[in-house]
Amino acid sequence: MTDVRLQRLIETAPALRVLTDAAELEHYGRDWTRRWQPAPLAIALPATVEEVQAIVRWANAERVALVPSGGRTGLSGGAVAANGELVLSLERMNRVLAFDAIDRVLTVQAGVVLEAVHNAAREHGLAYPVDYAARGSCSIGGNIATNAGGIRVIRYGNTREWIAGLKVVTGTGEVLELNRGLIKNSSGYDLRHLMIGSEGTLGIVVEAMLRLTEPPPPTQVMLLALPSFEALMQVFSIFRSRMTLEAFEFFTDRALRHVLAHGAQRPFDDEHPYYVVTEFAAADEHQQAVALEAFEACLTEGLVVDGAISQSDAQAAQLWRLREGITESLAPHKPYKNDVSVRISSMPAFLAETQALIEAGYPGVDVVWFGHIGDGNLHINVVPPEGMPQDVFVAQCEQVTDLLSGALARHGGSISAEHGIGLVKKPYLLDTRSEAEVALMRGIKRVLDPNGIMNPGKVFDA
Amino acid sequence: MTDVRLQRLIETAPALRVLTDAAELEHYGRDWTRRWQPAPLAIALPATVEEVQAIVRWANAERVALVPSGGRTGLSGGAVAANGELVLSLERMNRVLAFDAIDRVLTVQAGVVLEAVHNAAREHGLAYPVDYAARGSCSIGGNIATNAGGIRVIRYGNTREWIAGLKVVTGTGEVLELNRGLIKNSSGYDLRHLMIGSEGTLGIVVEAMLRLTEPPPPTQVMLLALPSFEALMQVFSIFRSRMTLEAFEFFTDRALRHVLAHGAQRPFDDEHPYYVVTEFAAADEHQQAVALEAFEACLTEGLVVDGAISQSDAQAAQLWRLREGITESLAPHKPYKNDVSVRISSMPAFLAETQALIEAGYPGVDVVWFGHIGDGNLHINVVPPEGMPQDVFVAQCEQVTDLLSGALARHGGSISAEHGIGLVKKPYLLDTRSEAEVALMRGIKRVLDPNGIMNPGKVFDA
Repeated sequence: MTDVRLQRLIETAPALRVLTDAAELEHYGRDWTRRWQPAPLAIALPATVEEVQAIVRWANAERVALVPSGGRTGLSGGAVAANGELVLSLERMNRVLAFDAIDRVLTVQAGVVLEAVHNAAREHGLAYPVDYAARGSCSIGGNIATNAGGIRVIRYGNTREWIAGLKVVTGTGEVLELNRGLIKNSSGYDLRHLMIGSEGTLGIVVEAMLRLTEPPPPTQVMLLALPSFEALMQVFSIFRSRMTLEAFEFFTDRALRHVLAHGAQRPFDDEHPYYVVTEFAAADEHQQAVALEAFEACLTEGLVVDGAISQSDAQAAQLWRLREGITESLAPHKPYKNDVSVRISSMPAFLAETQALIEAGYPGVDVVWFGHIGDGNLHINVVPPEGMPQDVFVAQCEQVTDLLSGALARHGGSISAEHGIGLVKKPYLLDTRSEAEVALMRGIKRVLDPNGIMNPGKVFDA
Repeated sequence: MTDVRLQRLIETAPALRVLTDAAELEHYGRDWTRRWQPAPLAIALPATVEEVQAIVRWANAERVALVPSGGRTGLSGGAVAANGELVLSLERMNRVLAFDAIDRVLTVQAGVVLEAVHNAAREHGLAYPVDYAARGSCSIGGNIATNAGGIRVIRYGNTREWIAGLKVVTGTGEVLELNRGLIKNSSGYDLRHLMIGSEGTLGIVVEAMLRLTEPPPPTQVMLLALPSFEALMQVFSIFRSRMTLEAFEFFTDRALRHVLAHGAQRPFDDEHPYYVVTEFAAADEHQQAVALEAFEACLTEGLVVDGAISQSDAQAAQLWRLREGITESLAPHKPYKNDVSVRISSMPAFLAETQALIEAGYPGVDVVWFGHIGDGNLHINVVPPEGMPQDVFVAQCEQVTDLLSGALARHGGSISAEHGIGLVKKPYLLDTRSEAEVALMRGIKRVLDPNGIMNPGKVFDA
C-alpha cells in the first residue's frame, strides 16, 4: 500500500480493513453491468459508522471520490468504480441490530442481504414484503439507493414505502438519523425520502429501520396464455377488480423460449404471444372460486386461451420459475437492458410504438420483453447476435435507446423504473426529468456533498 | 390599490384577482390558530398556473414574501400572513381535472377541498382514503404541504402515500411536473417527496395526481371503555393481530366530558379513564365473529370494562362523533394544542412522563388527551382557565411545551405529528431535528427559493 493517500487513511482509521489486491479491485470495482473496466484506488470495508465517517472526512481532505457498494447486483453501473475511486463496501456492516414487536420495525445495517431481512422478519412471524430475484445477493442499502421495486410492487409498493428510518453519513461526514421509525412526523423536509433513490450521490446509508407487515395470506399462482397485449390489459383489469393480486407479471413467447432452453418445463403444448404469471390471495374456498370464475370469464371472452393453476407450493414455484428464470437465462448472453415505465393506461400505445421502433432498429435481433403490468414497468432485453463485438452491439443498442427515450418522453414515462440511472442511463436522464429538475438535483447535491466526493459522475454530471 | 408594487403586479398579470379590503386581509391572513394579527399586503387569487408563475416572478423582482393559502384550517400558523406578505390563495383553482380508471388516478387543482376529492372518487366507484375532521374546509394543497395524516393512517398511511404526481411552481417561478403518475420511477432525486410536508417554503403545489383505491370493506365501529393506558396498549396489540383495523383512536374521560357538554350522547353509565373508538373490516359473519371474540377475550382479562358495537351506519356515526367531536367541542375555549408523536412502543413511557410533567406544569388545568394509538400520535389540548388573558396562558403553555419537547427528544419523538411546524412549533424544531438536518434544510431551501420569498419565517428562520 504505497499510495500516500491510503497511508493517511490508515493513520486516521487504524483498524479499517483496506484491500488493494488486483483481484479485489476487479471484484469490488464493478456491478452486474460488466461494461466498465474496474479501476478503483482501493477497497475500504468499514465495520462501524465511525469508520464510515472517518473515510468520508479523509475523502474530503484528499479529494478522493467514494463509491458506496452493497451487493453490486445493480444493472445501471451505479456501483462501478472505474476512475480511481475508493470503493466503500458495506459488506461487513451486515447485522440485524434490533426488532420491535410493537412497532413492527426491524433495524439493520445497510450491508445486510435482502434474503437475511426476509428470514429475520419470518422468525418474528412477520414479513418484509419487497422482493426480487436478486434476493440472495443484493443488500438493503443498495435496495434503498435505487428505491428497488420487484415482483410485488402491485401489492406492497417499492422499497420507499417500507423505510421507517435511515441513519446516513452525508458527503461531509455528518451522521443524520432520519425519521427514527416514526409513523407520523411533519417536522420539516423529509430528508429520508431524498436519500431513497439517490444512488449514493448524497451520502451513505449505514442503517435502516424497516417496517414489517403481516405475512401474505395463502395464495395461488396462475399461468395464463394470451392472444394479444390488448387482451392482457383487459385480463389485468378484470383480475384486479375481483381478486387481491399479489403479483401480475407478463412475458413474451421469446422470453419463454430462453427459460425453456435453460431447463424449465414447457407449460402448454402450443406457443402463444403473451403469458402472465399472477399470484393472488386464496385463503379460502370463496377466494379460490372467485379466481376460477374470473379465469373462466376471460376464457369465454377469448381474452385467455389457456391456463394452469397451482395446487401446491411446488407447483407455484414451478410456474414462478417461468417468469423469475428469465433474467438468469439471458445473463450468459450479456443482453442490453432497458427498464422503463409508463402509466398503466399508457402501456398499450407505448408498447405498440416501441415494438415498431425496436423492430426497425434491431431487425432480426432477439428482443425479449417482460415486466410488471400492474406497475407500468417493461423490461426490454436485447440479446446480441452471435459473433457481434460488444462495443458495436452496445453502440447499436444505444441508438435504439435514443428512440425509446423519445417515445418515453411522448408517453410521460421514465427511462428507469427500478434499476436507477447510474452510468448506463445517464445520457437519457433529460428525456425523463426536465432541465429545471436536474438543475435542482445538482444544487441539492452541492448542499449535501459540497466537494462532490459522493459517487461522482453517476445519475448526472456535477 | 395605491401600493406601486401591487400596481406592477396587475400590469404583469392583468386578469389576476387581487383583494385589499380590510375584511379580506383579515379573512385570508390567518388560519385556525388565531394567535397572530393578520397583516398581509394583499390577497391574490390566481386562476391559472401561469398566473401563479407571474406572481412568483413578481415577488422575486419586488422581494415580496408569499404565503401560499388553501383552506387555512392549519393548526400551526403555516398559512398566517402577519408581516406584509402577499397571500397566494389557491381557492379559485379548485377543479377536478381528470380521472383515469386504469391508473386509478384523480388529477386535481390544489385548491380543491378534501370532501370534493372524496366525492369525486366515490363517483368513480373508488376511494381517496385519507380523511380528517376538517374534510369540508381543508384543501388538498394544504394536506400535501403538511403531509396530513388523520384518522385512517393506521390502515392507509399519510397523504404522502397517495400522491402519484405533483405540479409545482418553485420559488423562482419554474414549473415542475414531478413523477407524473408513475408507480415506478427511479430516475434521480424524488423532488415530489421533498415538496410534500415542506409547508409552502420551497414552492407552491398547483396540481396533484391522487392515487385512488378500492372503497373500504363494510366495517363496524366499536367503543371500548378501558381501565388504564397499559390495558389500552394490550387491547391494541390483540385487536391488530386478529382484525383488519381501519382506525384505532383513543380519548380520555376529560375529552368525553367536553363532547357530552357539546350535545353528544353518554355512551356508558359509568365514567372510565380511557375510551377507544375502533373501526374494523366486518365484511362477513366470520370477521364479525372474530371481532366479538377479541372483545370478549379482552373483557375476560379485565383489559376492557365496557363496550358497544355499531349495528348500523347511524350507530357507527354516533360512536365516531364521540371522538371526532372533540376538536369542535374544544374550539370555543381556544385551547393550546400539542400534536406530538413517538414510536408506538414508546407510548406508555412517554405518556407516563408527560402526564407527570403536565400535572406539575398545569396544576388544576383542564388538559384533554386524545389521539391515534396505532400511529403513535398524541393530541394534547390545554383549555385555558376562565378569565386568564390569552398571552399569559400561551406563555404558560409554552413553558410546558419546552418540557414536553425535552421528553420527546429523550423518547425519539416529534414535536409535530401531522399539523406541521409553521410558526407555532418553530421554537421547538431543534428538539426533533438535529442542527445538521436543519442546516441542510436551509441549504435546500436556498436551492429552490434563492431569494427567500416562499413563506419565510415558517418551519425555520433562513
